[in-house]
Amino acid sequence: MEADPATLPWKSVYKLMIGSILPRPIGWISTADAAGRANLAPFSFFNAVAARPPTVVFCPTIREFDAGPKDTLRNVRTTGEFVVNIVTETLADAMNISSTEFPAEVDEFQAAGLTPAPSAVVAAPRVAESPIHFECRVHQIVDLGTEPGAAALVLGRIVHLHVDPSVLAGEDKIDLAALRPIGRLSGPGYCRVTDVFQMPRPPSQLG
Amino acid sequence: MEADPATLPWKSVYKLMIGSILPRPIGWISTADAAGRANLAPFSFFNAVAARPPTVVFCPTIREFDAGPKDTLRNVRTTGEFVVNIVTETLADAMNISSTEFPAEVDEFQAAGLTPAPSAVVAAPRVAESPIHFECRVHQIVDLGTEPGAAALVLGRIVHLHVDPSVLAGEDKIDLAALRPIGRLSGPGYCRVTDVFQMPRPPSQLG
Repeated sequence: MEADPATLPWKSVYKLMIGSILPRPIGWISTADAAGRANLAPFSFFNAVAARPPTVVFCPTIREFDAGPKDTLRNVRTTGEFVVNIVTETLADAMNISSTEFPAEVDEFQAAGLTPAPSAVVAAPRVAESPIHFECRVHQIVDLGTEPGAAALVLGRIVHLHVDPSVLAGEDKIDLAALRPIGRLSGPGYCRVTDVFQMPRPPSQLG
Repeated sequence: MEADPATLPWKSVYKLMIGSILPRPIGWISTADAAGRANLAPFSFFNAVAARPPTVVFCPTIREFDAGPKDTLRNVRTTGEFVVNIVTETLADAMNISSTEFPAEVDEFQAAGLTPAPSAVVAAPRVAESPIHFECRVHQIVDLGTEPGAAALVLGRIVHLHVDPSVLAGEDKIDLAALRPIGRLSGPGYCRVTDVFQMPRPPSQLG
């Protein structure tokens, strides 16, 4: 198959992209609106960007039925804050419930049976059941369009991190087997991270 | 563990981030310099951003031994073009060889025993052995710093896509079992995407 994506329906391009760019990490993003009402939603167009200053990115997309921006995007624009909660296998069902299209006034914590925990620095609550949280302040939002299928990049600086001792192996190493993270695939697909192998990077050939 | 990351060594923050934000997809980025010399390197701070217009992002980081930007970043700044090649399990060794710190004049295609194939639209070559290529033009580069540990976000628009029929199941669906992609973990860790499960999204609760 050879194609200029401009000649394809955007949903076909979307399917080809999410079927090729995988496995994707999941950023389970909690925010609060100006009135303090909590919101929670998962994003797999999400990743680390840099460690110095510590920066992450997630990309809310515009859906066909959206009258305006997703609740999460509206909240980060209004408050400049969000929390990344790490999704483990035991939290998969709750994460999936939080991905439901709810009216803006619904608190996904309540709908998914999750406990909001106060954050240390930001107003947005954390998911108490998640073992790792990165509290973030918005660094920059890059808008890429307003049509369905378009997205914004939300760049956040980590201002506080919480790591449960149960998933720490040493002072700065996360224990993969204890964390049991899940990754996002295409369609309804997810994966566990169990089929692991090691490939040390070859030694430097710089002079 | 509770920490303001500003109080930690940036390498510890890096380790905590890559141990938490996973599994990460791998963007195997081929570029050419102004003289047409090829370069190839893998990036796991990489993801899809949007389908309309089709946009990807990867984030070259600045290493402690770098005198200037990575070859890939220098090339995308100079030429405004790159290709995303998808890494499969059979290409894992070659991908790892291409991650070696080579002097700028080394062609990683040659070092890794890979075949450069001409692209349809951009000057950068593709990895012939990879079944999926996204030819991209740079949309925007967001610089986040110049110190070691800092990074730039390179946003690329997909201008042409190639998908080998062997990994297609239907006109716009990628066959995961045929593709056999790998994901990036922390340290020397990688994963296969074999421990898969399905979770359909709950029905919309919008009125």
